[in-house]
Amino acid sequence: MSTRTLPPLPRDVRSMVRSGEWRGVTAMVAPGYVQANLAILPRELAFDFLLFCQRNPKPCPLLEVIEPGQVEPRLVAPGADIRTDIPGYRVYLDGEPAEDITDLNDVWRDDLVSFLLGCSYTFESALIHAGIPLRHVDNGKNVAMYITNLETVPAGPFSGPTVVSMRPVHRTQVVRAVQVTTRFPTGHGAPVHIGDPQAIGIKDINAPDFGDAVEIREDEVPIFWACGVTPQAVAMKSKPSLLIGHVPGRMFISDVRDEDIAVL
Amino acid sequence: MSTRTLPPLPRDVRSMVRSGEWRGVTAMVAPGYVQANLAILPRELAFDFLLFCQRNPKPCPLLEVIEPGQVEPRLVAPGADIRTDIPGYRVYLDGEPAEDITDLNDVWRDDLVSFLLGCSYTFESALIHAGIPLRHVDNGKNVAMYITNLETVPAGPFSGPTVVSMRPVHRTQVVRAVQVTTRFPTGHGAPVHIGDPQAIGIKDINAPDFGDAVEIREDEVPIFWACGVTPQAVAMKSKPSLLIGHVPGRMFISDVRDEDIAVL
Repeated sequence: MSTRTLPPLPRDVRSMVRSGEWRGVTAMVAPGYVQANLAILPRELAFDFLLFCQRNPKPCPLLEVIEPGQVEPRLVAPGADIRTDIPGYRVYLDGEPAEDITDLNDVWRDDLVSFLLGCSYTFESALIHAGIPLRHVDNGKNVAMYITNLETVPAGPFSGPTVVSMRPVHRTQVVRAVQVTTRFPTGHGAPVHIGDPQAIGIKDINAPDFGDAVEIREDEVPIFWACGVTPQAVAMKSKPSLLIGHVPGRMFISDVRDEDIAVL
Repeated sequence: MSTRTLPPLPRDVRSMVRSGEWRGVTAMVAPGYVQANLAILPRELAFDFLLFCQRNPKPCPLLEVIEPGQVEPRLVAPGADIRTDIPGYRVYLDGEPAEDITDLNDVWRDDLVSFLLGCSYTFESALIHAGIPLRHVDNGKNVAMYITNLETVPAGPFSGPTVVSMRPVHRTQVVRAVQVTTRFPTGHGAPVHIGDPQAIGIKDINAPDFGDAVEIREDEVPIFWACGVTPQAVAMKSKPSLLIGHVPGRMFISDVRDEDIAVL
C-alpha cells in the first residue's frame, strides 16, 4: 500500500522557516493558501502608505496591517510572528537595498508598522484551475513585468507609475480570465488592460522592465494585471529612512485560503 | 408642448448648498450619483480610523480620505469643498453631540482628516432597478436598524458591534438581492446575514434600535446589510475630542455615478 504525503499547512511551513529548517522560494508551497508581500515602514509614514494602498487597491491590495510595534498578523495568521516567519527579508535604507537577513530580531523597533499585501499567486492558481494555462509557469520563468504610463493616485510622499505583469491568454479565454480574476480583489483583481501594450505606455513588449519576456502567439491576447512590485517601487522612490520588504519569491504564507478571499 | 425639468447634477446641488439656497434631505436628489457619509477626525486618530475602515469594509466602505487640512475631495468631487457642500454638519465633542451647523468655516483646523464613506442609497437604487421593492421606501419610513452581536475588528481605540439595516425580500428574490448588492462593495456590498434575526443577536425584530419597524410578510425573508451607523457609533464610543459628521439624511453628493463603483 502506497502512502501519499500531504502538502504542509501554512503554520508548519512558518514553523520550519522560524527554526531555520527551511528558507526557500514559496511558490507552490502550501497550495490553496494566500501568500503575501511584505512592506514594513516607520509609524510616521504609516498613515500615508495606508492611504496610498486604499487609493490604489489593484496594485496594493491590503490583506492586513499590523499596528506599530505589534508582530502578530492576528487576522490572517494568528500565532505567527512577522519578524521570523518569512524566508528572507530585504532591508532598504534611504530607498537603497542595504542587506538581506533571515529574521528581524536585531532590527525590530516599536514604531514599525507591517503591511501584508496580496500577491498574484492567488489569481494565477485560479486561472490554472479555470483551465487557462500560464506560459511563464509552464516554462519555469518569472512573469514579465512592465512600467506603464498609468499613474497611481498619490498619497503624501508616495506616488509613481503602476507596474503591471503580463500573461498571454488565448482569445477564446479572455472573458473567462477577466471573470476569474475579478473574484480576487485582494489578489490584484481584474486586469487593468487588455490588448495593445502601447496604449498603456509599453514601448517594447519583448523587453520587460522586470522578469522574463514570454512569447505571445498569433491567437493570443496580452492581458495586464497590476503588480505587487508597484508598492515596493513607490515606497523606495520616497526614500524612507527604513523600509523592510521580503526577498523576491520568498513570501509570507497566511492561514487564509484563496477561496476565503473570493468575492463571488 | 410640455417641458420636462432634468434632475440637477451633483455640482449644481453642491453649489446651492454652499450658497445656502437649499439645505435639505438628499434622498432622491441627483439620482444615479453616489452619496457619502461624512466623518472628520483630528490627525492623531486618522491612522487608527483608516485602519478600522480597512478592516471593516462592509460597515465602513471608504470612498475617499482627504489628507490633513485639505478640503477638496479630489477623487470623487473635484472642485467641491468639504467645509461647505453638505446640507448639515453635526459636531460631537468628547463623543457627545454639541451642535448642528451649516458650514465648517469657523471650526475648520489644519489637522482635520475627512473620511467619505459609501451609503446604502447606492444599493437601494440597484435593488429597486432590479425589481426588488423596498417597503420602508414605499411607506416613506426610515429603514429599520439593529445593533447585532457581530463584533467589528478593532483598530486602536475603535471597536464595537456592527449595526445592520434590515429589508424584507420575497423568498423568490433573495438570490437576486445578494447578487445585486454584491456589485457595490463601496456601498456596504453583499448582506452580512439572511434569515433568523436571533442568529446575529437581534432579540425582537419588531423593535429596531434605530429607524422604524417594518412588516415582514409570510413569504418574505429578512435580509441584513452592514449599516453606515456603525462607524459613527464606533467613533463616538471612543470619545474623540472632536468628531464632525453630517446631519442624518443630509449627505455629501459626489460626482461618481453608482455604476462607476460597481465591481461587476
